[in-house]
Amino acid sequence: MTHYDLIVIGTGSGNSIVDDRFDDLSVAIIEQGLFGGTCLNTGCIPTKMFVYAAEVARTARDSSRYGVDAHVDGVRWPDIRERVFGRIDPIESDGRSYRSERLPNVTVYPEHAEFTGRRELTTAGGRVLTADRFVIAAGSRVIVPDIDGLDAAAVGAPGSRIHSSDTVMRLAELPGSMIVLGGGYIAAEMAHVFSALGTSMTVVARSAPLLRHQDAAIAERFTECARESWDVHLNAQVTAVRTGSDGVEVDYRSADGAVTTLAADTLLLASGRRPSGDLLRADNAGIDMHADGRIAVDEFQRVLSGGTAQDDVFALGDVCSPYQLKHVANHEARVVQANLIDPDHLTASDHRYVPSAVFTHPQIASVGLTEQEAHDDGRSYVVATHDYGAVAYGWALEDTTGFVKLLADRDSGQLIGAHILGPEASMIIQPLIQAMSFGLDAKAMAHGQYWIHPALPEVIENALLKLDLPG
Amino acid sequence: MTHYDLIVIGTGSGNSIVDDRFDDLSVAIIEQGLFGGTCLNTGCIPTKMFVYAAEVARTARDSSRYGVDAHVDGVRWPDIRERVFGRIDPIESDGRSYRSERLPNVTVYPEHAEFTGRRELTTAGGRVLTADRFVIAAGSRVIVPDIDGLDAAAVGAPGSRIHSSDTVMRLAELPGSMIVLGGGYIAAEMAHVFSALGTSMTVVARSAPLLRHQDAAIAERFTECARESWDVHLNAQVTAVRTGSDGVEVDYRSADGAVTTLAADTLLLASGRRPSGDLLRADNAGIDMHADGRIAVDEFQRVLSGGTAQDDVFALGDVCSPYQLKHVANHEARVVQANLIDPDHLTASDHRYVPSAVFTHPQIASVGLTEQEAHDDGRSYVVATHDYGAVAYGWALEDTTGFVKLLADRDSGQLIGAHILGPEASMIIQPLIQAMSFGLDAKAMAHGQYWIHPALPEVIENALLKLDLPG
Repeated sequence: MTHYDLIVIGTGSGNSIVDDRFDDLSVAIIEQGLFGGTCLNTGCIPTKMFVYAAEVARTARDSSRYGVDAHVDGVRWPDIRERVFGRIDPIESDGRSYRSERLPNVTVYPEHAEFTGRRELTTAGGRVLTADRFVIAAGSRVIVPDIDGLDAAAVGAPGSRIHSSDTVMRLAELPGSMIVLGGGYIAAEMAHVFSALGTSMTVVARSAPLLRHQDAAIAERFTECARESWDVHLNAQVTAVRTGSDGVEVDYRSADGAVTTLAADTLLLASGRRPSGDLLRADNAGIDMHADGRIAVDEFQRVLSGGTAQDDVFALGDVCSPYQLKHVANHEARVVQANLIDPDHLTASDHRYVPSAVFTHPQIASVGLTEQEAHDDGRSYVVATHDYGAVAYGWALEDTTGFVKLLADRDSGQLIGAHILGPEASMIIQPLIQAMSFGLDAKAMAHGQYWIHPALPEVIENALLKLDLPG
Repeated sequence: MTHYDLIVIGTGSGNSIVDDRFDDLSVAIIEQGLFGGTCLNTGCIPTKMFVYAAEVARTARDSSRYGVDAHVDGVRWPDIRERVFGRIDPIESDGRSYRSERLPNVTVYPEHAEFTGRRELTTAGGRVLTADRFVIAAGSRVIVPDIDGLDAAAVGAPGSRIHSSDTVMRLAELPGSMIVLGGGYIAAEMAHVFSALGTSMTVVARSAPLLRHQDAAIAERFTECARESWDVHLNAQVTAVRTGSDGVEVDYRSADGAVTTLAADTLLLASGRRPSGDLLRADNAGIDMHADGRIAVDEFQRVLSGGTAQDDVFALGDVCSPYQLKHVANHEARVVQANLIDPDHLTASDHRYVPSAVFTHPQIASVGLTEQEAHDDGRSYVVATHDYGAVAYGWALEDTTGFVKLLADRDSGQLIGAHILGPEASMIIQPLIQAMSFGLDAKAMAHGQYWIHPALPEVIENALLKLDLPG
């Protein structure tokens, strides 16, 4: 049995906690997978690199309506893949070797571990580790849905035609055709990437519309746009998957009972991600779990046991957070770090205004309440929308689908939700996040600053001006 | 002699003043040129439409480094031109007919007018107009430099090879080659448009670097980038222009006295714009003028006569403003409108944090002080820069030249300047404008809100975090 001052499980955002302020502590870091976690290796970062290449291809293909006759001769998928992973993989290995070799006070266990007691872990190699304090940052994992004919072990295996987001970006060749199972953001981003690069795309989702957790206006508009590029099947209950030498087949049942069979070269499973507390056997540590598998934490990121916050065990990121978002995990990691360093003055997490973006086509960004949520909360609100096509930069873009939708509290004038679909949504939403975070009301935001003419943020300005607020 | 309650000279931002709150007043509107002014007809709006087409062409041409092999077969210049002006010209004529025909209390004089007395105008057609109150919103005009061989009457004439921004976007054909005289933002935008669309580009500027009013770091980086795409000649004193049947020739003298001759199909004059108060004979109205030709106004946009603010004459926009920017003119128009409606409670203009963007390649946006200005003001400041290439979205863009430079007051922690060169600079600067306008300090701005990972605004976040500020 080896005892440490601190054990950190997981090297996504968890890897940012131990800095030189921890030099006097003995630390164990446990990582069964890739150093850097989901975001770096299979999530945000590589996907956005693929997305931008997809945007370039799409821009070239769509150029004629701007009076430019460009065409795409071809896409060098292996070059795209090597550019992305040639950049990322060294970061993974550098992070691993830095932690493993350069820090005398840190020991890395590159293997699985489980709680085998309240404050005891046992590694796959049989080592028993204890510690004064623990940080659980074990993240989440791809859900493999339970479908007839779908062998979980085959997903992402070498030569397999069935992949998840863990492996699909490392395919040897660009598939000629692909079926994506899922209607969430991973499905939307991957379908965009592959279809823009030239893969014939079919999307199959259990419900409707696509991206149904977005504000309904956004989800509906997005689904319309998706149908123009992809073969979209909604309200589809997938009943069977079959793989053959030349591809995959998927059967689904519609609401009316009819069964449809779809075929493609490759199948991508994008049914979401599950927090990994169960694999850690957090139950053996007496840690409370939510019904959806998340570890329960308080506002200081302390885990709960029997409803009581534990001073010696913290959790952060996907393993406990309702937001499977890197910027939230990073924030929670900073909170945990602060609370490890100064346990007498605990810092609370700020989950008030958590934005997110979907890097699909058209791009989507949102923060705060959807209109449905505002309605369900009984809020008194005003709503305004403004089209990209109604501002000068939208004319330049020849945009016909983008819009901004804002919700504000009728009494206070504060923004309570912002939803954007259109080019660079993830960029132009930032002033709205800032206004919400610092309590700047919508009218002051519109009138109290300059908006560069004719830059795209004018679409935000105009939506703000439309909010029917007093004063 | 016809007397009005109000005369508005100019229909750029000035055209927005008269709304239904002026229905009880008799109003004359004087416009010698195009309705809608520079921005709509020859400035911001058409240029940005051309710029986006240029971006599309450039993206296609640069695609190979993203693993996408696209190429540009051709550019349909007449289609681009018709798309732009097919959209803009009807707005001009609709604006004209609305003002001329649909408002019983408004008379439009589509002709030149000059002050022929302190409160008396005479139109080119010989009508004498007086009014209780005047709004001077006559804008600015292209400067035609005094160069040997350059006939001002030939600039922009049908069939001429010499153009200004007033006419160059309406050329019949895309020139094979072009010389741009000028090193400011109009030169930078037009050179970008034409070169990206396929014109061989030469830029000749009197001083160095290009865009020398920007922060020096921005101007220098931009000049380096420009040299990669254009033939750039700096510190060049143009001494002669010659036009022949097959093109134009330009002679310039370098600092060492050497004379160089350049040749191209087309010459674009981009030496700046001059306020038009002189053409109005504002001197006859006793209005004070700055040395640079601007009408002098106070903070309520009232013109000055002998240093005294006049309650009955307002000015706004390029004719009086040190900022030749549409968003400033619009702001000043709202101020003038408010002060016409409620003269007993005057509203002041807010010129504290005026941003601007240059839609060239790479794009540039800035607000507040340059480092040189901060230094000259004796400010105690800290500075930080962060490269696009050092954030995840910059990796996706494969950006190697973009950066953000921030200046903050060392004592207050408030931002005093922000300068961005790189993709979508005009979008990602908005949160910085907002922070400066509402007094949000740099540290709070960085830490007190979420920044979507991995969206481009992270480059702002990281620059903020680098500012060496206490607390």
